[in-house]
Amino acid sequence: MPNQSPSQSPNQPNAVLLIHCPDQRGLVAQIAQFIFQYNGNIIHSDHHTDQQSGLFLMRLEWETSGFQIGRDEFAAAFLPLARKMNLQWEIHYRDQPDRVALFVSKQSHCLYDLLWRSAEGELPCEVALVISNHPDLGPAVEKFGIPFHVFPITADTKLAQEKAEIELLRQHRIDLVVLARYMQVLSPQMVEAFPNHIINIHHSFLPAFVGAKPYHQAFERGVKLIGATSHYATAELDQGPIIEQDVARSSHRDTVEDMVRKGRDLERVVLARAVRLHLERRVIPYGRKTVIFD
Amino acid sequence: MPNQSPSQSPNQPNAVLLIHCPDQRGLVAQIAQFIFQYNGNIIHSDHHTDQQSGLFLMRLEWETSGFQIGRDEFAAAFLPLARKMNLQWEIHYRDQPDRVALFVSKQSHCLYDLLWRSAEGELPCEVALVISNHPDLGPAVEKFGIPFHVFPITADTKLAQEKAEIELLRQHRIDLVVLARYMQVLSPQMVEAFPNHIINIHHSFLPAFVGAKPYHQAFERGVKLIGATSHYATAELDQGPIIEQDVARSSHRDTVEDMVRKGRDLERVVLARAVRLHLERRVIPYGRKTVIFD
Amino acid sequence: MPNQSPSQSPNQPNAVLLIHCPDQRGLVAQIAQFIFQYNGNIIHSDHHTDQQSGLFLMRLEWETSGFQIGRDEFAAAFLPLARKMNLQWEIHYRDQPDRVALFVSKQSHCLYDLLWRSAEGELPCEVALVISNHPDLGPAVEKFGIPFHVFPITADTKLAQEKAEIELLRQHRIDLVVLARYMQVLSPQMVEAFPNHIINIHHSFLPAFVGAKPYHQAFERGVKLIGATSHYATAELDQGPIIEQDVARSSHRDTVEDMVRKGRDLERVVLARAVRLHLERRVIPYGRKTVIFD
Amino acid sequence: MPNQSPSQSPNQPNAVLLIHCPDQRGLVAQIAQFIFQYNGNIIHSDHHTDQQSGLFLMRLEWETSGFQIGRDEFAAAFLPLARKMNLQWEIHYRDQPDRVALFVSKQSHCLYDLLWRSAEGELPCEVALVISNHPDLGPAVEKFGIPFHVFPITADTKLAQEKAEIELLRQHRIDLVVLARYMQVLSPQMVEAFPNHIINIHHSFLPAFVGAKPYHQAFERGVKLIGATSHYATAELDQGPIIEQDVARSSHRDTVEDMVRKGRDLERVVLARAVRLHLERRVIPYGRKTVIFD
Repeated sequence: MPNQSPSQSPNQPNAVLLIHCPDQRGLVAQIAQFIFQYNGNIIHSDHHTDQQSGLFLMRLEWETSGFQIGRDEFAAAFLPLARKMNLQWEIHYRDQPDRVALFVSKQSHCLYDLLWRSAEGELPCEVALVISNHPDLGPAVEKFGIPFHVFPITADTKLAQEKAEIELLRQHRIDLVVLARYMQVLSPQMVEAFPNHIINIHHSFLPAFVGAKPYHQAFERGVKLIGATSHYATAELDQGPIIEQDVARSSHRDTVEDMVRKGRDLERVVLARAVRLHLERRVIPYGRKTVIFD
Repeated sequence: MPNQSPSQSPNQPNAVLLIHCPDQRGLVAQIAQFIFQYNGNIIHSDHHTDQQSGLFLMRLEWETSGFQIGRDEFAAAFLPLARKMNLQWEIHYRDQPDRVALFVSKQSHCLYDLLWRSAEGELPCEVALVISNHPDLGPAVEKFGIPFHVFPITADTKLAQEKAEIELLRQHRIDLVVLARYMQVLSPQMVEAFPNHIINIHHSFLPAFVGAKPYHQAFERGVKLIGATSHYATAELDQGPIIEQDVARSSHRDTVEDMVRKGRDLERVVLARAVRLHLERRVIPYGRKTVIFD
Repeated sequence: MPNQSPSQSPNQPNAVLLIHCPDQRGLVAQIAQFIFQYNGNIIHSDHHTDQQSGLFLMRLEWETSGFQIGRDEFAAAFLPLARKMNLQWEIHYRDQPDRVALFVSKQSHCLYDLLWRSAEGELPCEVALVISNHPDLGPAVEKFGIPFHVFPITADTKLAQEKAEIELLRQHRIDLVVLARYMQVLSPQMVEAFPNHIINIHHSFLPAFVGAKPYHQAFERGVKLIGATSHYATAELDQGPIIEQDVARSSHRDTVEDMVRKGRDLERVVLARAVRLHLERRVIPYGRKTVIFD
Repeated sequence: MPNQSPSQSPNQPNAVLLIHCPDQRGLVAQIAQFIFQYNGNIIHSDHHTDQQSGLFLMRLEWETSGFQIGRDEFAAAFLPLARKMNLQWEIHYRDQPDRVALFVSKQSHCLYDLLWRSAEGELPCEVALVISNHPDLGPAVEKFGIPFHVFPITADTKLAQEKAEIELLRQHRIDLVVLARYMQVLSPQMVEAFPNHIINIHHSFLPAFVGAKPYHQAFERGVKLIGATSHYATAELDQGPIIEQDVARSSHRDTVEDMVRKGRDLERVVLARAVRLHLERRVIPYGRKTVIFD
């Protein structure tokens, strides 16, 4: 975990810069030079050029100990280079963990997993609240000392309830929404309120078995591997940019219930990996894809 | 490899019995009892009941050394029990390796792999001939001393050429056809000539990316794993019962060409595993699925 | 999960018979015949012959609905066949879940995982108590409503404390002890009190990196995969029969802390799989090995 | 494959620079700046800092189309920066494939695999010759039109034969030696003649099962996964820096022969991946470890 790495002092945490821009010569050199000239010690840099779209994407991490640009000065100092190279960018300081909201329905496995990881310091975030369309998981969440809000959803109330949820998320200054087996399709308004900041876990190896009951579909098809996929939610169901996927062996002996059980282990690990990659600013989505700087 | 197992004498090879029938009490006991009463030593038995369809499927392997029923007597001896329990069955003796025909186009990786495995004794079969719609791989095949036949295919000639191929396969008493990256869709006449005896390799994790150019589809979708699937060919493209699947990691760094290269390693191994399972009579297809007794 | 399978009525649960004996002709037939003649419906049977030792090992599962031998009559009814074939055997009824004790030290990941699985009905057992050499995890355990006992261990007190633990385990009629990252080496008295009924998780791919600090050893060696191994505890450290293993990718970017974090996900899943296999009576240990009937 | 990537013109191939040096500020910026000021278009850069040893390691790839420093001028032009930062470095041009010698004994699987990959253009190298201590594989090698040399080895003749081999390798200007299941331990003189330029495949998951007959050792220990490891050969047997590893499932049903067969598939793929990583200059060995820039 970066928080524990020997190169990071607790008071002077690392900064992470994410960049995407049109591909052009000199990007690596000039951006690295900018950090270096202000005495930043680059501890990791990685970049990728998408040949089809002519897009350059970069992640740069440096120690802020000794770095000569303050947090509130960075934008102004970086502006000339950003303009010249036509950069889109964001900066993130490792000592400012994201505030996260978890959405759940009735299943507890992904919820518990994320709460445990957060409580043990394994995920660099603060779980600020949990939202559900059912009251069932309230007691479990409250054991962790985290507020639990119920928003029952019907076809009629969905838009109004989502509006109230968005309001609540804004009040709590939520950076990231994680759908931890939330069994509702989000409306476009919710997706647009947090573009590329809603992470979902789908219990299949996408694009196979889109939509409802993927384990039943997998059982009917007789596949020899089952999968799980974590992706950013977009307006189109199960079509958002994929962050992480994994699979497990299945056989003719597995009932649908066995697949569901094996799948839970996949879902927990795949979702947790995706959330961690996002929180550490290792993901840049573009078009239907992601670049993962791991 | 069974051929090398200490329990098998070279002159008295093992017999394998595959059975499927309606589920009913006493199947395991009565079938095992039949083998035992004629002094067969069961070295492996496995079975599966499909609850949905009420189907019982079984594989039984025993040493024929000391077995009191000769090969030409087995059907008659087994008839009463088979009738009583309504069994469908086939028997296979391990010293009678299948005669196999490989179908290829221009890509050599699966072809070479299967020829090498066969030549080294790793696959219990005899590759009797190779058929292609292109002449390119002829010299490579002939180095292995195996006949190579070219049947160019166009939309107009396809049915007639396939008829000639079926004729040739019958002349050579072919038991199994393996489509080792044969880039033609078979017509129903070919599939029906060898029902559940044509094995294909599809270069994706089915049912994702059915049809043409699956690696291009995978690249566009931005998946984090690529796959390969071996299945029995049926009249519907890429819809036959799946025998084996596997996946490999992919990342944003992979071009389509990288995926193709990584995929070749998957395809070779997945196809070889499926062919081996079939040759050792470890597969029973039923409906859209397979049972694998491994 | 067998508990949910359509073939099992809630009042008449399945029975599982585990057998090992010298290899001989007719074992499968005669044992299956025994179950059948008393109207048991075999839903799964599997067996294995170890050629080196001439040992036959079998697992047989049948529906007790309609089975004509009561639980207290089985031993007597089975005795003649067991004597004739020289069988060692045990029978287990699926509605009598094992009583399990968890041993932990300060790390919570395996503990939480097993408590969650047990609470959700995913593991067919009852966690009767948790024992630790440190008080730290007490509050977490008590949230689950499970008794927590602290037995501090020093070199001087070890034998006495273990004696008290054994006493406590017997009072609670414990069937299985799970060392869920318990950082103490057990003395032979403890191992002998529960032979082949203590399951440990070791955080390496055994036999690589036996003993202390395996992730540090793995880091120093520069391996590209890290592993976890679940095995029965024996008097020799990390040498017991292996039940389950798995691995995950590692790279030069991983610090020891990263390996520890990745390893936690492996340990949880590998230990849970091993415990499930044992609880479902799918493991037969023999010599330094296990047979897994999955 | 980089050779096929759209960013690389056939006449102006990419250059790859590998660097290691003491860690210090400004390395990324100044090295990237050097390439940029001479109009090199960096298409990939990656670096790693080993905290324990204070070592900085870097791989930089750029298009030479438009690059203003000729091949024979590079060393002189780079010298000032290299001296100032105390860099150790080597440069490689992608149009100059390594000349490779394969060492084999009697097993053909890795040999065939590498010959096929090389012939199909999948590995960017030229297999210049094959050396063996047995004549058996000569005919197979000669089918590929590659010279085959036999050097029988006994305890008495080993040093003299190796000397002759080194001589032959030098005559052929061999860049890389690949031990493709060569069943001889190399003496220190051979290792020292090609330091970090001899790649071996060991048929176990190192450091488990060092030395002879690892599949027999794995069988005796009852492991649930078998592995293969590719590493640079050093004077100490099976102790060199690991380049790549992988594993496959095994079970109690596998005989030693089954493990050997499954292992062949692992060995081929793991060795081919390691050779490819080396040929593309993606490996920097240091101490007992490697950095892999993939």
